[in-house]
Amino acid sequence: MEPLKNQVRLDGMPALLPHARRVARRASDLRGYFVDDAALEALIRRDNPVIYEVFEPSVPEAPGQIMYGITVLYPGRVGREYFMTKGHYHARRKTAEVYYGLDGQGRLVLQSEDGRSHVDDLEPGTVIYVPPGWAHRSVNVGVRPLVFLYAFPAEAGHDYAAIAQHGFAKLVVDQGGTAAVVDRSSWLAVPSRDHRMR
Amino acid sequence: MEPLKNQVRLDGMPALLPHARRVARRASDLRGYFVDDAALEALIRRDNPVIYEVFEPSVPEAPGQIMYGITVLYPGRVGREYFMTKGHYHARRKTAEVYYGLDGQGRLVLQSEDGRSHVDDLEPGTVIYVPPGWAHRSVNVGVRPLVFLYAFPAEAGHDYAAIAQHGFAKLVVDQGGTAAVVDRSSWLAVPSRDHRMR
Repeated sequence: MEPLKNQVRLDGMPALLPHARRVARRASDLRGYFVDDAALEALIRRDNPVIYEVFEPSVPEAPGQIMYGITVLYPGRVGREYFMTKGHYHARRKTAEVYYGLDGQGRLVLQSEDGRSHVDDLEPGTVIYVPPGWAHRSVNVGVRPLVFLYAFPAEAGHDYAAIAQHGFAKLVVDQGGTAAVVDRSSWLAVPSRDHRMR
Repeated sequence: MEPLKNQVRLDGMPALLPHARRVARRASDLRGYFVDDAALEALIRRDNPVIYEVFEPSVPEAPGQIMYGITVLYPGRVGREYFMTKGHYHARRKTAEVYYGLDGQGRLVLQSEDGRSHVDDLEPGTVIYVPPGWAHRSVNVGVRPLVFLYAFPAEAGHDYAAIAQHGFAKLVVDQGGTAAVVDRSSWLAVPSRDHRMR
């Protein structure tokens, strides 16, 4: 029996993904992504926490290969927005992705380049298919870490620029203890919000 | 918010995969795959049960797309061999696959065209990466249905012929209540086995 290092055991814990590369995104890595810049800067000054981390085994970035891993997105908020991933399009737009929720309560925000939006629940036992061409961002609306498995064509690549520049059209915000999906444009237009744009 | 039928909820139950095509394989679909032909024929005469079923949402078979679904492999044996899937190579050999165990106790038997074999545990919480070029077959060694999620490049295709003709080099058999991996060649060579080759 040849040794083949192809198996990982989760038991709900990505720390048990051996051979996986860990990429951590702290609050300071997410400057420009949240509406409330002041709240983000306060968080960075406080202890600049890890907002999310990705555990990804090494797979060749070749057509036919499947890149996969686990994301852990911690609970918290920046102003009224919940902790979230940067979000991205795939550099090769014609590549899809599949998500599988393992733990926690989240949302997956999808957006197409022609302006359509869609928000799905991302919870234990849900499978979400991200069609080719849709940007995707996960959001933790719960009180525990949001943990999910993902798989996509290894040649897909990541394009963060479009999202970094324009953001998503939809925000997921706390409204009196409930997660609400709101239009970014109208959210920014109301001066009574407790966010302060700089 | 545009409707986008991209989400399915499992809750451990693939019947809850809406829009998924169901493919069922009965005992009679597996003629030639088990060592003990007589035991299989007896099973077919008895009630020809469903050995496994696959629930697969429709995804275009195009490069960049991800085909995904859920397999439910029922518990049982044919002679000393546990219920198993046919197993296959991908028609496009340079395509990988990822498995994620949801329920039950199983094995994933891997085999390369140059004669290497590998057997992994397939259980809830395990992720298994099937490298490009490896045939794969799942085996239920437990008493409950073995349920797992899979994802692979949609253009991969299936090549059942090589396995149908030669089988896998390794068998997973019951030995006194324990699942054992044995060489098919030496298993067939011992006349005292309770299988009868026709």
